Amino acid sequence: MLDTLDLDRSLDKVTYKTRIEELMCQLRSLQQACWQAKLPLVVVLEGWAAAGKGALLKKMVNYMDPRGFSVHPILPPTRIEQRYPFMWRFWQELPPKGSIGIFYHSWYTHLLEDRLFKRVDEADVPEVMGQINAFERQLVEDGVAVAKFFIHLSRKELKKRLKKSAKDELTAWRVRPEDWQQEQNYKKYRNLAEEMLLHTSTGFAPWMLVEGNCQRWARIKVLSQLVALLTEALDRQALETPQMINPPPQPLVDTSPDYVGKADLSLNLDKKEYKKRLRSAQLDLKKLQLKIYQQQIPVILVFEGWDAAGKGGAIKRLTDILDPRSYKVNTYSAPSEEEKQYHYLWRFWRKLPLAGNFGIFDRSWYGRVLVERVEGFASEWEWRRAYREINEFEAQLISHGSVLVKFWLQIDPDEQLRRFEARQNDPFKRYKLTDEDWRNREKWDLYEMAINQAIARTSTPSTPWSIVPANDKYYARVFIIETIIQSIENQLKRKKKG
Amino acid sequence: MLDTLDLDRSLDKVTYKTRIEELMCQLRSLQQACWQAKLPLVVVLEGWAAAGKGALLKKMVNYMDPRGFSVHPILPPTRIEQRYPFMWRFWQELPPKGSIGIFYHSWYTHLLEDRLFKRVDEADVPEVMGQINAFERQLVEDGVAVAKFFIHLSRKELKKRLKKSAKDELTAWRVRPEDWQQEQNYKKYRNLAEEMLLHTSTGFAPWMLVEGNCQRWARIKVLSQLVALLTEALDRQALETPQMINPPPQPLVDTSPDYVGKADLSLNLDKKEYKKRLRSAQLDLKKLQLKIYQQQIPVILVFEGWDAAGKGGAIKRLTDILDPRSYKVNTYSAPSEEEKQYHYLWRFWRKLPLAGNFGIFDRSWYGRVLVERVEGFASEWEWRRAYREINEFEAQLISHGSVLVKFWLQIDPDEQLRRFEARQNDPFKRYKLTDEDWRNREKWDLYEMAINQAIARTSTPSTPWSIVPANDKYYARVFIIETIIQSIENQLKRKKKG
Repeated sequence: MLDTLDLDRSLDKVTYKTRIEELMCQLRSLQQACWQAKLPLVVVLEGWAAAGKGALLKKMVNYMDPRGFSVHPILPPTRIEQRYPFMWRFWQELPPKGSIGIFYHSWYTHLLEDRLFKRVDEADVPEVMGQINAFERQLVEDGVAVAKFFIHLSRKELKKRLKKSAKDELTAWRVRPEDWQQEQNYKKYRNLAEEMLLHTSTGFAPWMLVEGNCQRWARIKVLSQLVALLTEALDRQALETPQMINPPPQPLVDTSPDYVGKADLSLNLDKKEYKKRLRSAQLDLKKLQLKIYQQQIPVILVFEGWDAAGKGGAIKRLTDILDPRSYKVNTYSAPSEEEKQYHYLWRFWRKLPLAGNFGIFDRSWYGRVLVERVEGFASEWEWRRAYREINEFEAQLISHGSVLVKFWLQIDPDEQLRRFEARQNDPFKRYKLTDEDWRNREKWDLYEMAINQAIARTSTPSTPWSIVPANDKYYARVFIIETIIQSIENQLKRKKKG
Repeated sequence: MLDTLDLDRSLDKVTYKTRIEELMCQLRSLQQACWQAKLPLVVVLEGWAAAGKGALLKKMVNYMDPRGFSVHPILPPTRIEQRYPFMWRFWQELPPKGSIGIFYHSWYTHLLEDRLFKRVDEADVPEVMGQINAFERQLVEDGVAVAKFFIHLSRKELKKRLKKSAKDELTAWRVRPEDWQQEQNYKKYRNLAEEMLLHTSTGFAPWMLVEGNCQRWARIKVLSQLVALLTEALDRQALETPQMINPPPQPLVDTSPDYVGKADLSLNLDKKEYKKRLRSAQLDLKKLQLKIYQQQIPVILVFEGWDAAGKGGAIKRLTDILDPRSYKVNTYSAPSEEEKQYHYLWRFWRKLPLAGNFGIFDRSWYGRVLVERVEGFASEWEWRRAYREINEFEAQLISHGSVLVKFWLQIDPDEQLRRFEARQNDPFKRYKLTDEDWRNREKWDLYEMAINQAIARTSTPSTPWSIVPANDKYYARVFIIETIIQSIENQLKRKKKG
């Protein structure tokens, strides 16, 4: 793709001066329009060292209100950052609705510099590309405008600029040894860039290639393309019909296969057996905890289930066993105002556990296809695409080496009623029961359909669901802990083999 | 202080079993009570290696709801963390209202292990102690319950336990080389602990010393003291009269010395002079930016001033000059629901710039003693103690080597009216003018009193206020940039000398 660029293109000073002024004014107005339309923008600046990205960036934001954008210079990941999935640190830096996030270098360094310096395994490259494409599609489908620029330089020009920068006291400190490596490995780096552009120039987030030998040309090209992209994004947003909030519940569809209904709810344990197996599991988990830490495995546990199915109690029995320094429990209900400013997965990405630790999710990203779907808090287009988003998200967790276990705690409506009534009669537990619980109960069939569909679409060989027969609490708790132990042991075996 | 402990104290197994069960039940109820009363609790666990802190922690949280507490194991600071003031990383981990934050080791490692291994300059120790005491007082005065435990061991017992741990496969990995150093330097470490306890056992956050040779004794002592402390904190909270929201405005008091009124608002620049001085400042700042980065100096700029005084424009002219990769602009208005769950300084601590960068604050922590005071959003006791909290906060910034410049942009009421009317007539700027602006204008005198008092109480030799005569925008902008340059140069000179 870079071959198609004519690096001799240039622009005279007079034309440049008029044009750049115009463009900076347009960008200022567009920034204000984005703010009012709550449209977020992500800009990616990639390209050779000394391609003039810094000076270009200055022009880009020159007339913008500095309260509305953030610039993120991307450095190699720190030791802590390496203990999360690769995309984790970029999720942290996403702009909220109406704001602009500019990435000066980005997730793409993983396909360029990291590859050049062998900081990424060649075998992993296709997967990294897939993760990046999924990430950008998720953003775009959530209404984020994404603009990606790659500024190309000829080898001669690159060398000339590096030399010039190194000579000038004011710029010399910015020239890193890695930049010279680009020049020395020009062909190799160029091939990496070619491959990257080919595989990540997608329909929803295409690369815009920029001839960089003439700085004036490059700046005008980038800014004018940015103006065009933003104008179009605003137009498109205005054309979209406003999404219905709380639409009427979907008509009931066939829920077969009935995954949750198949659970054998008669399964139970007596107290003696319960205590015995809990104690034995406790010992096993204690030993496994050490290995998890040594091998830096993140363990991610998702708890979903009917109201009063016993999620809290099951989590408690599990954490009783764990070292309190090694886990965090994250509880989710409706998103806060701040959380609503981002893609719905954002608040889960933030709480991923550090490798070697347990992250326990009391309700999770499945809310999108369960409560948000059934209650109409998410539009049909939002929850329909969520299955794919969830699969992509979980694939990244798995690819980072996580143990992921997803539990659905299944009880039947009669058992739920018994528990609701028991709560109502217990002054200490009454606070747990809300009107909403009663309302959700009336929609049992809708929720059943939603969970069955969620399981059908998000159970992959590496991310299976565990349906927990939970009418008997003893049985459920032991089942959960033993399933976790099994999953960790499987992962340890896989690691040993691999 | 440690001499007063009788390390031979012990507890028999039977008494222990009954007592520990009781205490764990009490802690569960207290956790629930804290949640309902929105009382936050900070627990600090310090003491010798192998003092049994881990096992104690397990008992402490054993019956608690894992969704209501977080455990923070404290490791030596990362390279990134070292680029912030010492207390920064602990502010990030504070529990929100109603939750419990447990620090397994804490800010006190800076006075123990860091001192033992010479990671802290001896000359800085008194200042670190002062910072810690200020931090804890700020929390307590904001309604946080703080419980600090130091678990003491005899040298013989320490050695015995380290040996035992090192032998057991399941615990050996937890024994660090540093732990053995404690044993080898027992006397020295003990003296450090003595000094720490002496200087940081304050009235609002006293240390609770625990005889650790008998683990049963230690656990019962810690848990029972924690129960007592929490019960008392809940009682005290219930006794306090609810704070008035929006009390009647304070009667006007004498505002002399009238700091802001003394500004000579006739000062102005013509366009030619403005452009010239702006250009020259631009060059200077560019050179200084390099030095700031090389010497890793954080630059913190606070912008306060009347509505329409030109803060936005002044910030814009400043950021125009700066490299967009080197600064962030943080804008503050009323705190969000999430921010209200913490001490009011929390949202500013979060946004401190990394050393070597600029942090620009468009409105700031002074909101507490300005708008929150005048409009009655903060109670009298809250804003009155804020002066001291602000001085302590800023002293930490200075002590970390920051350049701190605080601007008040002063205009007179007539000029404000002119600008309001101009905004109202400009369709592009009309959105900037709100009803609130008009309401604030009516309280001009109250705000004037508040800012004069704030300046009087928070201007120290190292944190002076700059009053900017801002009736003429040209003059104000140049004044601001030149003041920043001057402050950076002064700091560079100081560093060279020091």
